[in-house]
Amino acid sequence: MRGNIYVVGMGPGKEGMMTGDALAVLDGADLIVGYPVYLDQLGERFAKKEKYSTGMRQEKERCLYCIERAKEGKKVALVCSGDAGVYGMASLMLELSEEENDIEISVIPGITAALSGAALLGAPLSHDFCVISLSDLLTPAEGIERRLRAAAEGDFVIVLYNPQSRNRSGYMKRAADILMGSILGDRPCAYVKNIGREGEEAHICTLSELGDADIDMFTTVFIGNSKTRIIKDKLVTPRGMV
Amino acid sequence: MRGNIYVVGMGPGKEGMMTGDALAVLDGADLIVGYPVYLDQLGERFAKKEKYSTGMRQEKERCLYCIERAKEGKKVALVCSGDAGVYGMASLMLELSEEENDIEISVIPGITAALSGAALLGAPLSHDFCVISLSDLLTPAEGIERRLRAAAEGDFVIVLYNPQSRNRSGYMKRAADILMGSILGDRPCAYVKNIGREGEEAHICTLSELGDADIDMFTTVFIGNSKTRIIKDKLVTPRGMV
Repeated sequence: MRGNIYVVGMGPGKEGMMTGDALAVLDGADLIVGYPVYLDQLGERFAKKEKYSTGMRQEKERCLYCIERAKEGKKVALVCSGDAGVYGMASLMLELSEEENDIEISVIPGITAALSGAALLGAPLSHDFCVISLSDLLTPAEGIERRLRAAAEGDFVIVLYNPQSRNRSGYMKRAADILMGSILGDRPCAYVKNIGREGEEAHICTLSELGDADIDMFTTVFIGNSKTRIIKDKLVTPRGMV
Repeated sequence: MRGNIYVVGMGPGKEGMMTGDALAVLDGADLIVGYPVYLDQLGERFAKKEKYSTGMRQEKERCLYCIERAKEGKKVALVCSGDAGVYGMASLMLELSEEENDIEISVIPGITAALSGAALLGAPLSHDFCVISLSDLLTPAEGIERRLRAAAEGDFVIVLYNPQSRNRSGYMKRAADILMGSILGDRPCAYVKNIGREGEEAHICTLSELGDADIDMFTTVFIGNSKTRIIKDKLVTPRGMV
């Protein structure tokens, strides 16, 4: 018996931000697995589907459950917020199924927060950019700091995921301080909260203001490059560097 | 009279890879503007819509036409391949409409090639990454080289857009040589061609092989970080750096 696992990017949350392919995969799945909040976001269309969830930091158990059910011949959809790959579950699923030969794994991309946040803000990502997570749960702090310095050195637009949380306070300030080692504090920046969900907010600010801004784990932060400017309350990076 | 311009990311091309919001905006638009190839990809659903296109390097004219029609009170959709912002038209549109007060501009995100390509390859973007365009049409070569060096220094996964074309040959080899200044030639890499379209191909290779690979302007290139590995012909970057 050959089963299928689809790792599906849900985008920011509402159905209109999912692709047709992602919706079709969920329609055709025997069961949908995910973090409880994401399953709740799926709404009426998938109300009758079998569902299974595990809590935060139970990502490995979630993947192993998908493998177990796929081995029964089921079509299993594992949903991720944003994209399926960008800090998503696709890599863990591929790693954990390395020894399984009767399961096919497919990755269905979705709109990650860098893209949905950028669209809300205007056009900050029209030139080369980096995406960096400030979470040191799985990554040593020195590795994150090295990347922040390299991103500033390369004059990239920088997008920060998981900037901080109640248990990881002060991370945004530390990151801003590192960036201000080579970037002036008046650099145009922005942050967006709860993209595509209730409580959606977009704020334009400067790099020096970011450290004390009201930033939580549902916030995505944008730091402009040397050419980024503000046009009518929008954050805009020109396409060229000329 | 107040008009609207929607800058819409089409994703890689086929309708299933567009979001519901993007399709709804095109359904509701009075006219659809874009580069000819992208308009052709829209297919039957939008066959009867008024359309307008300008050729390559006529991006400014395309935006100005949108502004002109929006000022008549029309709802204008400007389509971009991939995302609307990532090397897309959103920034140029916001810049060119800076002095216009009776037009509302909205950006509708789409699946950019970094995400659609990553999904085909497995999960290369599960940790911090950079997106860099190798096109020196609007960016001086030194700026691009500086970013390549910074990306390697930061141990980012690197995604290259516009790697080379008939008129810009040898660019991939030069970029690979720069990266090999600090990355070993056996680093797992990959490239994907014609994502989501006829002729779609995915290839896994090493950094030293990239320079001579069959890479054109419809190719997106992925360079793994120090932890990226190949699992059953998939390119996988683990979520942590531990």
